[in-house]
Amino acid sequence: MLDRQSTPATAVEMASRQREISVSEFFLKNRHLLGFDTPAKALVTAVKEAVDNALDACEEAGILPDISVQVRDRYGKSRVIVEDNGPGIVESQIARIFGKLLYGSKFHKLSQSRGQQGMGISAAGMYGQLTVGKPLHIISRTKGDKLASEMYVSIDTAKNQPDIHRKKRLKWDRPHGTQVEMEMEGHYQKGPHSIEVYLKQTAIANPHLTITYQDPNGEQIRFARSTKRLPPRPTEIKPHPYGIELGRLIQMLSNTASRTLLRFLVDEFSCVGRKTALKIIELARKQSDKQLSDRSYPRHIAHAQATALHRAIQKTRILAPRTDCIVPIGETQLLDGLHKELEADFFTVTTRPAAAYRGNPFQVEVAIAYGRPGEVGVEVDESGNMRKKEANETSAAEHLIAQKDEPIRLLRFANRVPLLYQQSSCAITKAVIQTHWRAYGLHQPKGALPIAPMAILVHVASVWVPYTSESKEAIEPYPEILKEIKLGLQQCARKLARYLRRELQLHQEYDRRAYIEKYLPHIGVALQDILALSNAERDSIVQRLDNVLHKSRTTQRPDP
Amino acid sequence: MLDRQSTPATAVEMASRQREISVSEFFLKNRHLLGFDTPAKALVTAVKEAVDNALDACEEAGILPDISVQVRDRYGKSRVIVEDNGPGIVESQIARIFGKLLYGSKFHKLSQSRGQQGMGISAAGMYGQLTVGKPLHIISRTKGDKLASEMYVSIDTAKNQPDIHRKKRLKWDRPHGTQVEMEMEGHYQKGPHSIEVYLKQTAIANPHLTITYQDPNGEQIRFARSTKRLPPRPTEIKPHPYGIELGRLIQMLSNTASRTLLRFLVDEFSCVGRKTALKIIELARKQSDKQLSDRSYPRHIAHAQATALHRAIQKTRILAPRTDCIVPIGETQLLDGLHKELEADFFTVTTRPAAAYRGNPFQVEVAIAYGRPGEVGVEVDESGNMRKKEANETSAAEHLIAQKDEPIRLLRFANRVPLLYQQSSCAITKAVIQTHWRAYGLHQPKGALPIAPMAILVHVASVWVPYTSESKEAIEPYPEILKEIKLGLQQCARKLARYLRRELQLHQEYDRRAYIEKYLPHIGVALQDILALSNAERDSIVQRLDNVLHKSRTTQRPDP
Repeated sequence: MLDRQSTPATAVEMASRQREISVSEFFLKNRHLLGFDTPAKALVTAVKEAVDNALDACEEAGILPDISVQVRDRYGKSRVIVEDNGPGIVESQIARIFGKLLYGSKFHKLSQSRGQQGMGISAAGMYGQLTVGKPLHIISRTKGDKLASEMYVSIDTAKNQPDIHRKKRLKWDRPHGTQVEMEMEGHYQKGPHSIEVYLKQTAIANPHLTITYQDPNGEQIRFARSTKRLPPRPTEIKPHPYGIELGRLIQMLSNTASRTLLRFLVDEFSCVGRKTALKIIELARKQSDKQLSDRSYPRHIAHAQATALHRAIQKTRILAPRTDCIVPIGETQLLDGLHKELEADFFTVTTRPAAAYRGNPFQVEVAIAYGRPGEVGVEVDESGNMRKKEANETSAAEHLIAQKDEPIRLLRFANRVPLLYQQSSCAITKAVIQTHWRAYGLHQPKGALPIAPMAILVHVASVWVPYTSESKEAIEPYPEILKEIKLGLQQCARKLARYLRRELQLHQEYDRRAYIEKYLPHIGVALQDILALSNAERDSIVQRLDNVLHKSRTTQRPDP
Repeated sequence: MLDRQSTPATAVEMASRQREISVSEFFLKNRHLLGFDTPAKALVTAVKEAVDNALDACEEAGILPDISVQVRDRYGKSRVIVEDNGPGIVESQIARIFGKLLYGSKFHKLSQSRGQQGMGISAAGMYGQLTVGKPLHIISRTKGDKLASEMYVSIDTAKNQPDIHRKKRLKWDRPHGTQVEMEMEGHYQKGPHSIEVYLKQTAIANPHLTITYQDPNGEQIRFARSTKRLPPRPTEIKPHPYGIELGRLIQMLSNTASRTLLRFLVDEFSCVGRKTALKIIELARKQSDKQLSDRSYPRHIAHAQATALHRAIQKTRILAPRTDCIVPIGETQLLDGLHKELEADFFTVTTRPAAAYRGNPFQVEVAIAYGRPGEVGVEVDESGNMRKKEANETSAAEHLIAQKDEPIRLLRFANRVPLLYQQSSCAITKAVIQTHWRAYGLHQPKGALPIAPMAILVHVASVWVPYTSESKEAIEPYPEILKEIKLGLQQCARKLARYLRRELQLHQEYDRRAYIEKYLPHIGVALQDILALSNAERDSIVQRLDNVLHKSRTTQRPDP
């Protein structure tokens, strides 16, 4: 207690200690906010940020993505190399993209993309810099460029500006693409939070992607594309008037290039045509003592009139937000992806119509995979015979479908990116817990996930995903989003319930059949005695009886 | 599907869209990260940010805090006025403190305080500006100043810079202090997430605070201080060498004013004296081919030598971080606070010794309040008589102690600030769930909070609290923090278990006593018949029997 500061501070002393905090300093100290809290998580996050960027760039440039990921691990220091065949990065932008937080092309537009903050990859670089003191190493070549650019970049965290350490032009065998190499304190691990599981889930949600992965033990895995069709490119949209807060409206009015209120409304918003704009203005005019007209100069509109305008917008019927800006994975592609990457007895999938929260369009897709092969299944073959399904080896998929006495596994996705952490805070988890699974034939402890050999996949696509933190690990449970997820879950659950009822009947039937089969030979012997049959006749009768019983029973079961 | 952008972008087009994102824009779009996602939560968060600032300022200036909070609510628009008797703010700092994110005095030092990010109050202002388009209104007067400064401040979000709308000097009846007035889209609500509950919990953790609150219905509540002693002022510390990552060490080496490595180690770290520093340097020298000595000039130390130095630090025995920089609430004060603000049958409290995570000292306090008066209690009065406790009215405390068939209530605190939201992601919740409450006589469903008429209070104090988001609603579950909370819980739980065993015995005893009392009159009548007693003799014998039975039994019970 020696230097306990006992003299109270004055206002002047306190003022002298006020300082600006750079955004890099802030996130360096709070690196858990960006997903870099433990060496194990940092490694997965770094891979994820690099792969997300590669996918966004490829799709924007209309290139089928081929990505390679390589991780090496030595004494707690990890090296991650991610290489893509994307369009490459113009040299003058490389340093800022990799060496500055809050710098990017995706923040200022409303358009569906994996990245949105302009933070991820620079954060990975900053973490590497913090833990092993090494800058990022980038090689990038744009189409038509003779040489590639090579650069070593770190962040000057006190200023949030890039530091370029070395820079040169070099020959590179790729015609175009980007490679980023990061060194960091990392810890390689297997299990549900592994790079392997992240990549597998990425492959499910991106069937047009081919990705090869080499783990620290030198083992290679390849996830090959199942379609050569790129997803349609998402359009950029303007904001919907219903989602605009008053303060934002005032700001837009004073920043617009439009010279009349009418043009302002038509040009700056989506879903507002001339007619709707005139209706809004007329309503606002009445409420503002006729201080407004369609020819009002936007920058001169005062607070009271802006308030009237804002109120008029809320009271006018305006078309719901455009939703063609959202590109879901699609039911067929999602089913393909699931079939390719995991084995189950039953699959169902649904894509909800698009909806909006705070004026931002979004769309929900739900899929259910039920049953670990060999644990649940009884099947009827083409000739009408019944048999237990064989148990398959499911090592790769083991983390994606639960055991039958475990809580179901959740595969959460936002804009095609798997979410691995913070499951309990996520809108998807909350929606699953709030769904009444008992009504669909599953066991569900109160306030918990249902218990079943099952995986539920939920994909939320939006022009702006509201993540619960900068590490983008969970979706904020806005009521509109919760509601849509629940509706999707219910749709899938109804189909599951039908399947489960049939499964139950098949099981009961199988048990009955097994019972009959056991006693049929005895009946044969009895009949042989009574009717004085030869052994061959006896066997033939038993066989016929068996067939008859078989068919009559299996045709009794209701259609699925 | 009209304007679906079908032409793929080139690297040059993509480069042209890269832009810097201002930190205000970022948080405006992600306002849920700052706790401003719904109007109800926004209102509580705004009050919280203003009160936290007021408390920090008062304590730093050595002033016993007197704070008044006033909330008005009209048609979804709320007005919040928070006034304190703090030291006031120097005029030149007002605009930046209230009109710029990431600006403050607490970020760059390691010292326990409520604020640490320099964001809260400006964020509240930004939310008000967004939703109703009004700036913050601030009045502040510093001691000795003749006049107060009045200012209207908003944020230029594109630049993260304050905009001053009006500014003047005025007479103010307070000799010193600050008043901030905010207008915003808000929704006033009662219940566990109400301003009232936040203030009540603040009063529990800050027994030196007097706070008056006027709610939108004009009703006033006053939480009066129970002590006039300010908590000791936390000291500022230097970082502990064990918590310094390699990259940070390199940065410190190149920024230091020290001219030798020896001085650098002694001056820039806590717990490193000359002797320890020499040991570290000797070890590092061996590992770096003798490239290092105590007289090495810090700025000239290369990466390889810095790595050796970092490794040497980890391998040298250094005293654990100083912990007198942490100011816990204290067991007595915490008990006082609990007694004052909530009623229960049993209280217990424990303050753990300080510990450290990532080199940051922290300290955990745990308290348990068990039993809602009137629901559980049987008590023995001074004369040895037993009776059921009376049921009290507990309306104000109703949200702080659970009903007996409900999960226990958690009161979470970080640096004396109550945490109201995101309970499920918090280290405190995880520690409580992971504690084996059945061993202490409570019912606990698997993976859930125990069920009991009980409140658990946990306070984590640290020079740097790792929150799970900028809204500071939950503590990141770092393993070291989880462990300390669990140890504190176990200490309290053991005392609770002793109390519960005694309670159980008292209950059984009470039931037996009631039985005897019921039959005693009959025995009296029988004795009267047999011994031919008068009515008075009979009553006297019954009375004496009663007393004897009473005393023999109540003295049998084991000491608590």
